[in-house]
Amino acid sequence: MSEILRYIDQNSSRFRAEMYDFLRIPSVSAKSEHDSDTRGAAEWLAQRLRDAGLEAELRETPGHPVVLGHWRGAGPDSPTVLIYGHYDVQPPEPLEEWTSPPFEPTERDGRVYARGSADDKGQLYMHVKALEAHLATQGSLPVNVIVLAEGEEEVGSANLVPFVEQNAAELACDAVVISDSNMYAPGMPSVLFSLRGLAYFEIHVRGPRSDLHSGQFGGPVVNPGNALAKIVASLHDADGRVAIEGFYDDVLEWDEETRDQIRSLPFDDTAYKADLKVAALGGEKGWSTLEKLWIRPTCDVNGMLCGYTGEGAKTVLPGKAMAKVSFRLVPSQTPERVKKLLEAHLARVSPPGVTVELVELHGGRPWKAKVEGKLVEAASEALEQAFGTRAVLQGEGGSIPIVVDFEEKLKASALLVGFALPGCNLHAPNEWFPLDAFHKGIGALAILYGKLG
Amino acid sequence: MSEILRYIDQNSSRFRAEMYDFLRIPSVSAKSEHDSDTRGAAEWLAQRLRDAGLEAELRETPGHPVVLGHWRGAGPDSPTVLIYGHYDVQPPEPLEEWTSPPFEPTERDGRVYARGSADDKGQLYMHVKALEAHLATQGSLPVNVIVLAEGEEEVGSANLVPFVEQNAAELACDAVVISDSNMYAPGMPSVLFSLRGLAYFEIHVRGPRSDLHSGQFGGPVVNPGNALAKIVASLHDADGRVAIEGFYDDVLEWDEETRDQIRSLPFDDTAYKADLKVAALGGEKGWSTLEKLWIRPTCDVNGMLCGYTGEGAKTVLPGKAMAKVSFRLVPSQTPERVKKLLEAHLARVSPPGVTVELVELHGGRPWKAKVEGKLVEAASEALEQAFGTRAVLQGEGGSIPIVVDFEEKLKASALLVGFALPGCNLHAPNEWFPLDAFHKGIGALAILYGKLG
Repeated sequence: MSEILRYIDQNSSRFRAEMYDFLRIPSVSAKSEHDSDTRGAAEWLAQRLRDAGLEAELRETPGHPVVLGHWRGAGPDSPTVLIYGHYDVQPPEPLEEWTSPPFEPTERDGRVYARGSADDKGQLYMHVKALEAHLATQGSLPVNVIVLAEGEEEVGSANLVPFVEQNAAELACDAVVISDSNMYAPGMPSVLFSLRGLAYFEIHVRGPRSDLHSGQFGGPVVNPGNALAKIVASLHDADGRVAIEGFYDDVLEWDEETRDQIRSLPFDDTAYKADLKVAALGGEKGWSTLEKLWIRPTCDVNGMLCGYTGEGAKTVLPGKAMAKVSFRLVPSQTPERVKKLLEAHLARVSPPGVTVELVELHGGRPWKAKVEGKLVEAASEALEQAFGTRAVLQGEGGSIPIVVDFEEKLKASALLVGFALPGCNLHAPNEWFPLDAFHKGIGALAILYGKLG
Repeated sequence: MSEILRYIDQNSSRFRAEMYDFLRIPSVSAKSEHDSDTRGAAEWLAQRLRDAGLEAELRETPGHPVVLGHWRGAGPDSPTVLIYGHYDVQPPEPLEEWTSPPFEPTERDGRVYARGSADDKGQLYMHVKALEAHLATQGSLPVNVIVLAEGEEEVGSANLVPFVEQNAAELACDAVVISDSNMYAPGMPSVLFSLRGLAYFEIHVRGPRSDLHSGQFGGPVVNPGNALAKIVASLHDADGRVAIEGFYDDVLEWDEETRDQIRSLPFDDTAYKADLKVAALGGEKGWSTLEKLWIRPTCDVNGMLCGYTGEGAKTVLPGKAMAKVSFRLVPSQTPERVKKLLEAHLARVSPPGVTVELVELHGGRPWKAKVEGKLVEAASEALEQAFGTRAVLQGEGGSIPIVVDFEEKLKASALLVGFALPGCNLHAPNEWFPLDAFHKGIGALAILYGKLG
């Protein structure tokens, strides 16, 4: 391994420069105006896989292409590892809140700031470099490798499950390794025991035929903006619980061992509040912050729009109003059941005089890891060797819906080992990634491949 | 009078064409990008007053200029009438909902469609043409006339009251005549007995330092979007009443005579709902639709914005949220007291974990007419002669804050006689004005000047 790790040390500047080239491509999958950029990122990545010594190609889907790389040189008796990541990124808005441009990677204080640096182009590229380090120094890899990078993770991965189903034989593997999550803290590498799921909706409230003068019509006309506020407010009770009937029926009561493990992690609510610049925390009463983030479900407004929102006072009674509302789910909730419960709730709370439509935008199931076994053990050892400290088990509040599908369709266990940090501003302005984790993490992944071989 | 009315008949096409030139100028006072257009509209109007035979000039204010016209030829023993109107218009957005462009007047079905056609450029211009008809045919007017047209009515008239105070001697008059309101129905001209006031605010809710990933932070972090919905929802109770403590303390209990008069007017809730394309009406329980519109106060969301509102699913926990919320006030409520009550309400309902700021954008007091006396009598007769039907007394849900100030500062009674129609889409897409009312109304105003002389 020492030759491999030396190679990684010697090439670290080049690795970083290449990652920056990747980050400069605005592969915003949600916006059709960026379709050619998104394809450009896929082509760039495929070429880098070929440069590292893999076979790689773009495979078309009804949406953005999948990048598929293969190295089969370990032979049929060696295990096969599928590395999954995504080359698409979230929209960068609001642009005015970025200190440096979102698609011009900029180093400050040992971090690189750029959209996609943490989620997930930076982390995906670490695997490419760990593979290169083996192939460049040994001429081979200790395992067979499949690299599968999609371009639709940020818009719901609608075409990935069909792709995996249709190509299950080609994608057959023993383990799926994913780096699209955080370490617990700086210098505290971790392996995930869970992911939350997601059910993302738009609620459209429609009232009168058009916007109206709020003086000439205000009073008898039901205002879609007020109605939307009433509907959104009805989604929580006074204790911060989601007030949708049946919402908690499928929520797993986690075992005491997991809850003990969560409690054993250092966490400082005061520092957390100070970092976020808030005076108080909220959410569901009776649970700690880490529990609220990892093992309890949520309901959050992601966006809300109605009427006139520009400069000055326009006295308009809006004809319609819209909210984007999403739920983070925990085992064993499903987006399908949450949608049904929400539909019933809306029917109950929507006032007469407006019509309310629910549109489902995105859904993904929550995931619970098998924490006993060779996979987590190998990862823990690799992380300890590379970072010089014992890895911890942690939950993750975000969602990677494909993980459950991978386990089901490919009958393989998933390992989630990520290198971003809490506060990395994922999906927010000024996303960043720690440069020392980029470097050490490539080493950890190279060691991990060795242990899996 | 017959010579004057004949002149109006003979010149009606030209009058209309001139009004369309006025409407083509996008004098959107709320938007600084239209400042030169707004001034252009003022200059255009001053020139038309001069063309009609008045002296006219632009008088500067800290904002948009006042257009001031004078004709003093009736002599000091004759009464002086001040005609007030405004040459600024509401923003035209949302543009995509206009059938024809907002600043290209287009005739359809006996109406002209354009921003400002009803509110108020079209109606203001009727006075200019009624003055011209007298001066062109008689060489004189039966009264002394002051025309005062402001360019900031749609943004709160902040500079008009100081202007009136500073120029009270020059503006001294016996009556203030304003055409910036509706007839009760097609062919049913009316005089107003009341106007509602206005208190217009922005509520800003600020949470964490920036937008956050809704998976990585959702749960313990208080979401400003959810908090805003809760705050807005708290503004009404289950009976549609404004749920702010003390809000109804200053609301006048109207006399039975006025309520009888309102009840005597033909009004069809079914047709009203059909026109608005709503299945049901709402608002304060226990009051009729006309009462809700004219003599009861309201609270309406005018705009609401937070988070990501573009295409697709962005899983963001917004760092801030904003609502524009306005109250229509009735005698004897005041914007000042409503602001105090709202501030106390916000302090009570705002959840910990966010900060809430109230910004006052616009305020105006409600008005109650002196319905007995020569002024209303003269107007009723003039309307009956021009339209061939008896004028009715009606309330008005909108606000013209300057009316109360005129009465106080100039010690003159105000007469509100308007020619737009319910459904004219004031402040909304596809604003229109009835062309027959434009024509007959110029006649009615010419007769009115005669009766006041």
